[in-house]
Amino acid sequence: MPKYDAYLIDLDGTIYHGSQPIPAAKRFINRLNQAEIPYLFVTNNSTKTPETVADNLTKQHGIPTRPDQVYTSALATADYVKGLRTNNQSVYLIGEVGLKDAFAKAEIPVGPADQASYVVMGLDREFNYQKLQEATFAISRGAKFIATNADTNLPSEKGMLPGAGSLVAAVVTATGVEPTIIAKPEAPIMEGALARLNQPQKPIMVGDNYNTDILAGIKNNLDTLLVYTGVSKPEEIAKLSDKPSHEINNFDEWSFD
Amino acid sequence: MPKYDAYLIDLDGTIYHGSQPIPAAKRFINRLNQAEIPYLFVTNNSTKTPETVADNLTKQHGIPTRPDQVYTSALATADYVKGLRTNNQSVYLIGEVGLKDAFAKAEIPVGPADQASYVVMGLDREFNYQKLQEATFAISRGAKFIATNADTNLPSEKGMLPGAGSLVAAVVTATGVEPTIIAKPEAPIMEGALARLNQPQKPIMVGDNYNTDILAGIKNNLDTLLVYTGVSKPEEIAKLSDKPSHEINNFDEWSFD
Repeated sequence: MPKYDAYLIDLDGTIYHGSQPIPAAKRFINRLNQAEIPYLFVTNNSTKTPETVADNLTKQHGIPTRPDQVYTSALATADYVKGLRTNNQSVYLIGEVGLKDAFAKAEIPVGPADQASYVVMGLDREFNYQKLQEATFAISRGAKFIATNADTNLPSEKGMLPGAGSLVAAVVTATGVEPTIIAKPEAPIMEGALARLNQPQKPIMVGDNYNTDILAGIKNNLDTLLVYTGVSKPEEIAKLSDKPSHEINNFDEWSFD
Repeated sequence: MPKYDAYLIDLDGTIYHGSQPIPAAKRFINRLNQAEIPYLFVTNNSTKTPETVADNLTKQHGIPTRPDQVYTSALATADYVKGLRTNNQSVYLIGEVGLKDAFAKAEIPVGPADQASYVVMGLDREFNYQKLQEATFAISRGAKFIATNADTNLPSEKGMLPGAGSLVAAVVTATGVEPTIIAKPEAPIMEGALARLNQPQKPIMVGDNYNTDILAGIKNNLDTLLVYTGVSKPEEIAKLSDKPSHEINNFDEWSFD
């Protein structure tokens, strides 16, 4: 009998480093499949579709993955807005293909800012002053402000790019309004992920970043597994009072029983 | 003998409201001219050249003004950078014509972000992700981060536009670095304005906004005159311990002696 009946698993820093594989992570996913334990990859990145993320895992990292095994902050945001909205309400959307696709598939109408009941904002590398102004006017008029995630940066080959949280900060400053944030460490993405896994009895949240992955688990009363292959370091975690349930150096140290 | 030998005077909310004149303000400037008391208009807005600001005062508001009677945050920023920089150092500039013109006139080289020693940022209604990314990389690499002003909004006929402070917040979030801020209530614009007035013995700072104009005076050990024709209200000021030196409802209540 395995300790946990479902795994929520972060991607970058946990399963791979950008284009670099993490071999023990690939073995871990293989073992999950063999043990027939359900899992869902949960990522704060809203820019890619689940198809693109699954394709990258399958082809670049040799981890065969279906799109329905990927839950992005874009999907979580569409699920969240779907739960809130009434008929006729539309969304002003700032974001990339992942976010646009999630709202299209959820059949949520996206339209101009001046008629929107919601301003939904994710990382958008075509962000500009005009979009900032539209969002500011809509939120000042009373539209609800929702952000996919608050990550300040996004790693890239060129260096740390400004993340969704950086664009969100501009809107917060111009409006004085704080958004509802969907992604880790906040609750909505966890609730959406557990719903996708059909409300498992004993799930666990797995990741490399204490401030997003592990806090998301702790805040949502899930057990947590911190793997030291990414952002967080053992010496930082040693100082904290709210520790992960489990800490490992790599996934080869982890057994399901 | 007048109480004050030089006046630093805010513009919007103090001398006019956007395109609306304030008649007592026009009379106040007339009286300053008649009494031959030097004055300088000091504005946080970096987007316009002093020529444009002077022209607007002269033609729209009937207040004859020379460009050298206008000190913008753009001019103050160029003066500040001029005081810091050594030969060969260049600036990556995000801003509009007022800021570009100030740096051109100060003969400070403006160039690409990857070679810049300074990132200078003001309101730029052509701001976009590319500029945000360039600024983020340059500051992360060690370029000094300087902002013309931190005003969160800019009034317009369409509503409150996002101000320079909103764009600055995006860069602060992406870099974790706070800028040196030049404009009111910070010191550099006051120091630059007093230098332009040849270091008067007993200057006074005049404006409608406690949080910018009056705090700029207080922080720089100037006497201050708050005029209740704009942002600040008597009931708000009544609660503060650090009061303006003088409070008036309009300039007709003010005498120089």
